[in-house]
Amino acid sequence: EKQRTALARTLISDNPMVLLDEPFSSLNLGLKRKLWHLLKKMQREQGWTLLLVTHDLEEALLLGDDLSLIANGELVDSGPKNQVYCYPKTVSAACILGTENFLPGEFVGRSDGLCNFHCPDFPANLSVSASYPTLAGDNLDKLRFKLGIKAADIKLCRVDSAGAAGCCNIEAVLEKGRTATLVLRSKTSGLTILAEVSLKELIGHAPGNEVGIIISPDAIMALVER
Amino acid sequence: EKQRTALARTLISDNPMVLLDEPFSSLNLGLKRKLWHLLKKMQREQGWTLLLVTHDLEEALLLGDDLSLIANGELVDSGPKNQVYCYPKTVSAACILGTENFLPGEFVGRSDGLCNFHCPDFPANLSVSASYPTLAGDNLDKLRFKLGIKAADIKLCRVDSAGAAGCCNIEAVLEKGRTATLVLRSKTSGLTILAEVSLKELIGHAPGNEVGIIISPDAIMALVER
Repeated sequence: EKQRTALARTLISDNPMVLLDEPFSSLNLGLKRKLWHLLKKMQREQGWTLLLVTHDLEEALLLGDDLSLIANGELVDSGPKNQVYCYPKTVSAACILGTENFLPGEFVGRSDGLCNFHCPDFPANLSVSASYPTLAGDNLDKLRFKLGIKAADIKLCRVDSAGAAGCCNIEAVLEKGRTATLVLRSKTSGLTILAEVSLKELIGHAPGNEVGIIISPDAIMALVER
Repeated sequence: EKQRTALARTLISDNPMVLLDEPFSSLNLGLKRKLWHLLKKMQREQGWTLLLVTHDLEEALLLGDDLSLIANGELVDSGPKNQVYCYPKTVSAACILGTENFLPGEFVGRSDGLCNFHCPDFPANLSVSASYPTLAGDNLDKLRFKLGIKAADIKLCRVDSAGAAGCCNIEAVLEKGRTATLVLRSKTSGLTILAEVSLKELIGHAPGNEVGIIISPDAIMALVER
């Protein structure tokens, strides 16, 4: 209530620069979304500059033009939001952006616009688009990479499918409304992988079953450790 | 830091019932997701009972089996999470669950397993699956309904498409990483509608353009006012 009043007081002043520190943190999602759009509309119409501090990624992406990521009090990355969101360069940045899976990878060479990585924990080599920002220089074999993969970018397929990057056991299925998170365990390395699928894609998959996974090179982030 | 220590202290005790009040609220998304899965795993393996209070819908849906919704200190709904999440009965419940669009609707009759509603603010009549929990009784014309529609359930189409429920002006396009929210204004009533689309679906749509919208009967919630 107090938070909403403070917010309303800010909104009716005609101050052109507004600092908001977690303004929506204790509101329910519906109310939050309504206020986001109100704020965004006023920002658009009044030309306000907002500096907003938040732990809510959807809020940051919706309201911001530029995004700065902070971890342990340190600035991890900063820039236009699409650049920062789509191409994190470090494990910390990818973690703040909600990436669930990280695999150590050694650069083994380039081919056809891709950089290829050997992943000791993973049955197949993985390839990343060579245009990924961290893959521009030479001496990539000297760097320690982690490959970051969002759970939503791991697709399920048949175990014997030609494109399968690996075969996993389904350890658990966690339904969460319109989607489900699958906890997968790689059969070769024991590595745990999280995959997020729609309820439609979930059909026919149950704990204890085996499943193949497919990961597109465009969905893999080549992250450097810091 | 303090929050994480308290959580760790709870997790290493072997108390079979744990109350957690916003345990993850000031953590970044990556860390949050990691801890959700750790907690879920311990819950699965140890058979813990958790009572968790949160403003984070994804957290509630992932960790909970049952979901209770509270608005203004009042219990709004309670039950198995899929039932509560997929079939909210009131505007408050749908709002807590993040529903963005609400249209007043008058029940006008049944046909082919659907209940039909006249929406004064909307160019077309809208239909809802007759199996929706609030549509079971008689005398539906005596009730005041609001039709709830999630932004993600509004699909774009050509203005002259046969299935179009209405024609809107695109007032703003708000990109937010992998999806974008479109602020649409109905050409007939001036009503604002929010639609969430993937970046692929966004191609060819820009502020100032006209667009048709399609809403499936399965995606409309018949909500009663309280």
